[in-house]
Amino acid sequence: MSGEPVFDKLALLGIGLIGSSIARAARRGNAAAKIAVYDSSKDVLARAGTLGFADSFDENLEDAVRDADLVIMAAPVGAYGGLAAAMAPALKPGAVVSDVGSVKSAVLRDAGPHIPPGVHFIPAHPISGTEQSGPEAGFAELFDNRWCIVTPPPGTDADALERLKEFWRRLGSQVEAMDPHHHDLVLAITSHVPHLIAYNIVGTADDLSSVTKSEVIKYSAGGFRDFTRIAASDPTMWRDVFLNNKEAVLEVLGRFSEDLSALQRAIRWGDGDALFNLFTRTRAIRRGIIDAGQDSATPNFGRDPKKS
Amino acid sequence: MSGEPVFDKLALLGIGLIGSSIARAARRGNAAAKIAVYDSSKDVLARAGTLGFADSFDENLEDAVRDADLVIMAAPVGAYGGLAAAMAPALKPGAVVSDVGSVKSAVLRDAGPHIPPGVHFIPAHPISGTEQSGPEAGFAELFDNRWCIVTPPPGTDADALERLKEFWRRLGSQVEAMDPHHHDLVLAITSHVPHLIAYNIVGTADDLSSVTKSEVIKYSAGGFRDFTRIAASDPTMWRDVFLNNKEAVLEVLGRFSEDLSALQRAIRWGDGDALFNLFTRTRAIRRGIIDAGQDSATPNFGRDPKKS
Repeated sequence: MSGEPVFDKLALLGIGLIGSSIARAARRGNAAAKIAVYDSSKDVLARAGTLGFADSFDENLEDAVRDADLVIMAAPVGAYGGLAAAMAPALKPGAVVSDVGSVKSAVLRDAGPHIPPGVHFIPAHPISGTEQSGPEAGFAELFDNRWCIVTPPPGTDADALERLKEFWRRLGSQVEAMDPHHHDLVLAITSHVPHLIAYNIVGTADDLSSVTKSEVIKYSAGGFRDFTRIAASDPTMWRDVFLNNKEAVLEVLGRFSEDLSALQRAIRWGDGDALFNLFTRTRAIRRGIIDAGQDSATPNFGRDPKKS
Repeated sequence: MSGEPVFDKLALLGIGLIGSSIARAARRGNAAAKIAVYDSSKDVLARAGTLGFADSFDENLEDAVRDADLVIMAAPVGAYGGLAAAMAPALKPGAVVSDVGSVKSAVLRDAGPHIPPGVHFIPAHPISGTEQSGPEAGFAELFDNRWCIVTPPPGTDADALERLKEFWRRLGSQVEAMDPHHHDLVLAITSHVPHLIAYNIVGTADDLSSVTKSEVIKYSAGGFRDFTRIAASDPTMWRDVFLNNKEAVLEVLGRFSEDLSALQRAIRWGDGDALFNLFTRTRAIRRGIIDAGQDSATPNFGRDPKKS
């Protein structure tokens, strides 16, 4: 990657799947000259230290953020308020503070008030991830061809915003700005409610005593196994998402349940046309996602059964 | 594959994804000496003819089944009653008639009465597929390491049953016998209801006018894209599944909705422990599916973003 690094010192607060992928991608893309890492778990920090993708691994939060030009909170959303309050005294004037949380209104509400004047607070959300967790699970390609949404508050410094966008472009992403409330509604439908119903159906299956767990596992290739991948995602992260995007999730969930009741009624009364019409309409959305480069066109996602 | 073919002549009625995969896998595994293909669509039959995986491509149903030792119905489940009635006069005494339908009680109810005495009717269901349709979409490896469930009626001839099981083993499957009603309940939870809620969430997203279709597509990598793959499956096949497994689907759907209401309430009242506990429990099911060889252990199913 050509050009100077976008930021001199990057501090990553939280070094799980996303934090460790940012470190790796920032090195690959020459996005930051120096990377400092902090994590509230000494065990996670020690494991990350052996992977060698950063310059320092600090047990002390203030050591990590001191002199940092970009600070990214990459912990579960519920931790952001506490992190922001704790690091505020050590933040360098002119620094950019950002995050990777899947909700944005709550981040502005919880972390915003702690950020001192002269520091630029610009929340962000890279739309990428896997079902795995921890520093070992990260990889430099995670953000390639994915979108990163930034939600700059009114009056955000234009230069600081442009540097943050350039940082994410160096990591492989396309960047788009959005209103935080609209972000939370869009993500409720494209991510939060899909995760909730995946968690829910896997729980329902686990509880169905007339069908054994071994049967659920053996015959999962009929569709269920797709849901279990999503339902294997990090529990703390997802608990915090639902607690912090309550309004939009409940709104979308209400519509989902209403639509599901209509389908249930169509099945009960044998209305084949209603079923067929919906099932035909939904194919077009899949086509759009493949055409937009957001998923693989190969059958079954190109799963390799030999690797299972 | 060593040994004699299991059946001399195989007739495949319907030559879409599943039928054409059976033809290819039967050739690979030396499961049948001769393969005849029938399809109610002349266009599909002509396309299949150019792919060269069978010995004859018959526009006439009776020509295809005449002298066949194994007849497999591989059309949508709603067509089986008509197919069975139409082919009955041409069936060879001692032949085995089977199918690949995703529901089994309805197949016994609809097709069973038309099968003449002296012909062995043994329904079957290979638990495998992709979101694609048509003879071009089939491939010989589709059934490798997957389960095929057979539901022999009481009094089924032991030799005929064993030959059908051996046929599916030659195609790469593991075979298990099950009661048809139990099959329909197991599949309701592992396949039918997951498909229904995938179709439903994709429809809900498409209808959400405050979020545009382009936003749903752009940001689908957050989880939604997994659901769209399932919701791109064949509409006729799936309409017939829901119309013919009404009882079990409504039973599982009732439990799913009940559980979802409890989750909704936990979100509304901020009960983080209830969310965290469910999200932790569901991870174990995923682990079981990977350990059982029913899915890939690589993140994101091992999707190749370069192929998207």
